[in-house]
Amino acid sequence: MTAEQQATGLGKLTEGCSALEELQNPAAMSLLCVRVKKAKLHGPPDKFNAYVTLKVQNVKSTTITVRGDQPCWEQDFMFEISNLDSGLVVELWNKGLIWDTMIGTALIPLDTIHQSDEEGPGSWTALDSEVLMKEDQICGTTNPTPHQVLLDTRFELPFDIPEDEAEYWTSKLERINTMQIHDEVGSMTVH
Amino acid sequence: MTAEQQATGLGKLTEGCSALEELQNPAAMSLLCVRVKKAKLHGPPDKFNAYVTLKVQNVKSTTITVRGDQPCWEQDFMFEISNLDSGLVVELWNKGLIWDTMIGTALIPLDTIHQSDEEGPGSWTALDSEVLMKEDQICGTTNPTPHQVLLDTRFELPFDIPEDEAEYWTSKLERINTMQIHDEVGSMTVH
Repeated sequence: MTAEQQATGLGKLTEGCSALEELQNPAAMSLLCVRVKKAKLHGPPDKFNAYVTLKVQNVKSTTITVRGDQPCWEQDFMFEISNLDSGLVVELWNKGLIWDTMIGTALIPLDTIHQSDEEGPGSWTALDSEVLMKEDQICGTTNPTPHQVLLDTRFELPFDIPEDEAEYWTSKLERINTMQIHDEVGSMTVH
Repeated sequence: MTAEQQATGLGKLTEGCSALEELQNPAAMSLLCVRVKKAKLHGPPDKFNAYVTLKVQNVKSTTITVRGDQPCWEQDFMFEISNLDSGLVVELWNKGLIWDTMIGTALIPLDTIHQSDEEGPGSWTALDSEVLMKEDQICGTTNPTPHQVLLDTRFELPFDIPEDEAEYWTSKLERINTMQIHDEVGSMTVH
């Protein structure tokens, strides 16, 4: 994250109530929006055929697979968040014919993500090679790799929508997510 | 695992040297073969569109996605194992349009897997909803779900092949895995 972006993020947080304050209210919900933009990988370009997985608690989304040492995905994902204790786990994987190999991983604590209704330039996140756990929670990562990923993360919806409206959006999202359009639908992006 | 299968596994281990003894020798390597057969899931059949991921250390393989509460994959995967300290992490995921949701997870310690050159009937593994960690290693799972998966796991190659032959197979596997046949190759199975 650049100094400029940090300032923007902090600005957003101090303008209104923070995501952390709001989500300590059990009725609150929010949409975490993540744009997986691109990566800078170190190594021979023909070695990489990479995709990104995003995990929050027991929910996961996956990008398409892109070749080269500077893969560009520009895919948007969203997650419904009901508390900010956990983190967004980002994993970069190199797809192989028989097995996929992890390129690196990063943890973005949810309480560090700013609120914004607009897409931003994102920030470069360095990838580590291992996760650190505290009991059943990922609490960080360790062992730096030279690889980096550019992510734009933000909480999108205003947090003070009426409870019935929040419930409407929750059930609508659930319905969309379990729709059975086509068996072969792969990783789906939301624009 | 049934009593019969456990006995078979133990029989294999006591006939020759065990996988554990053999892999304590740093020159040893082995192929872990896993056949993901099917699952019994509890809930409305139209709720499920499931796939399985298998992870060993920083390597991962994924099945195709199959609908229904009794999905049948019958897909084979293999992993190159150089030590038996870790475990095979099995995850069942329900594919959604926007995000995938975890159905359950299980840990199979590598030192409990028997040697065999033949496929077996597999054993039913109950799935839990959470992993348990000890520092940076998954050491178990907790919180049972009603879901089960049928897996056949075994170490396939004889463990006493000459070192140069082991190196030959290692490099051959690496070459196959990084082959670039087609961009859209999805999860690949080995028969």
